[in-house]
Amino acid sequence: MDERLQKQLDFVLEIDKEKNIFRQTHLSGHGRRENDAEHAWHMAVMAYLLREYANEPVDIGRVMLMCLIHDIVEIEAGDTYAYDAESLKTQKAREDAAKEKIYSILPEDQKRELIALFDEFEDNETPEARYAHAMDNLQPLLLNHSNDGGDWIGHQVTAEQVYGRQRKTRLGSETLFQVSDAIIRENMKKGYIRED
Amino acid sequence: MDERLQKQLDFVLEIDKEKNIFRQTHLSGHGRRENDAEHAWHMAVMAYLLREYANEPVDIGRVMLMCLIHDIVEIEAGDTYAYDAESLKTQKAREDAAKEKIYSILPEDQKRELIALFDEFEDNETPEARYAHAMDNLQPLLLNHSNDGGDWIGHQVTAEQVYGRQRKTRLGSETLFQVSDAIIRENMKKGYIRED
Repeated sequence: MDERLQKQLDFVLEIDKEKNIFRQTHLSGHGRRENDAEHAWHMAVMAYLLREYANEPVDIGRVMLMCLIHDIVEIEAGDTYAYDAESLKTQKAREDAAKEKIYSILPEDQKRELIALFDEFEDNETPEARYAHAMDNLQPLLLNHSNDGGDWIGHQVTAEQVYGRQRKTRLGSETLFQVSDAIIRENMKKGYIRED
Repeated sequence: MDERLQKQLDFVLEIDKEKNIFRQTHLSGHGRRENDAEHAWHMAVMAYLLREYANEPVDIGRVMLMCLIHDIVEIEAGDTYAYDAESLKTQKAREDAAKEKIYSILPEDQKRELIALFDEFEDNETPEARYAHAMDNLQPLLLNHSNDGGDWIGHQVTAEQVYGRQRKTRLGSETLFQVSDAIIRENMKKGYIRED
């Protein structure tokens, strides 16, 4: 087989491992923990369906691809829980090493392209990246809300922490931030998110 | 909240259930069975990375979306194993009822759009649908090959059955059919796929 195609197929098989990287979020219906591949799939479908609420016009194909690949580095770097202060300190270094290792399986042009797209997501400075981050934040919020705030209760998460994260949602979509805000307030009222 | 947005968010939560629809395919590394959401995610990433091998030019954004949504009906209709002759007889009727029910959660325009895209995939008559089917077939083939043909052995699958399915791959990508063909021959040689 052609060397280029072999590299592409090797990468396709490698990323299968993303299905074994589990997040802190639980599936709706008080289900099991969600994995990164499912989360990325959910974000990409949401991105398409909710694109009318992006603050700025977005290239939706690029957003979807960004959503689909944004957690591939976690195959090497592991999942970093959004409210784990210690792990967050080392996240960038771990993910930078991981992206070089994993994307090097691809042909050089595709390696460069996917690393650039991942970096664009991380830098959060383009309309596409900001809208993709809104999906990354809204998706677990919706699941957790549907589960009576189980993940927030389990980790004793505070409103300050949740709002800290949802600030990024506001940069991508004011409308969807309003949704998040209403959900957070409701869960604070019920005592599922701590006020202090 | 706006009725349109509420419907969209209801749909987003509903499709979370796709993560609980398990397929016959096992993850690489002799892992657990794969679910539909992971399968769709994998197909969409593959579609992007391998698009140079599509027989005809494709709108890759449409292909990716088609891959992402093609199994949503299975939330209601269940997964139909590719080599289960009895279930295949009722598959279309079950999926037609399911698509009406599930997509009706969305606002009317998005319901129509996603049903049209699902129907386009099923009809397999556009370049996008044919290429998406190539992904739908190649993805489990790669996983199963990586697992020493475990799923073929377990279901005593014959070469005729595998080739019957991979005919659709050839319509979408001659190059990727050649990959599939080589894999099938190797697995026949090893006795993992039955010759009769």
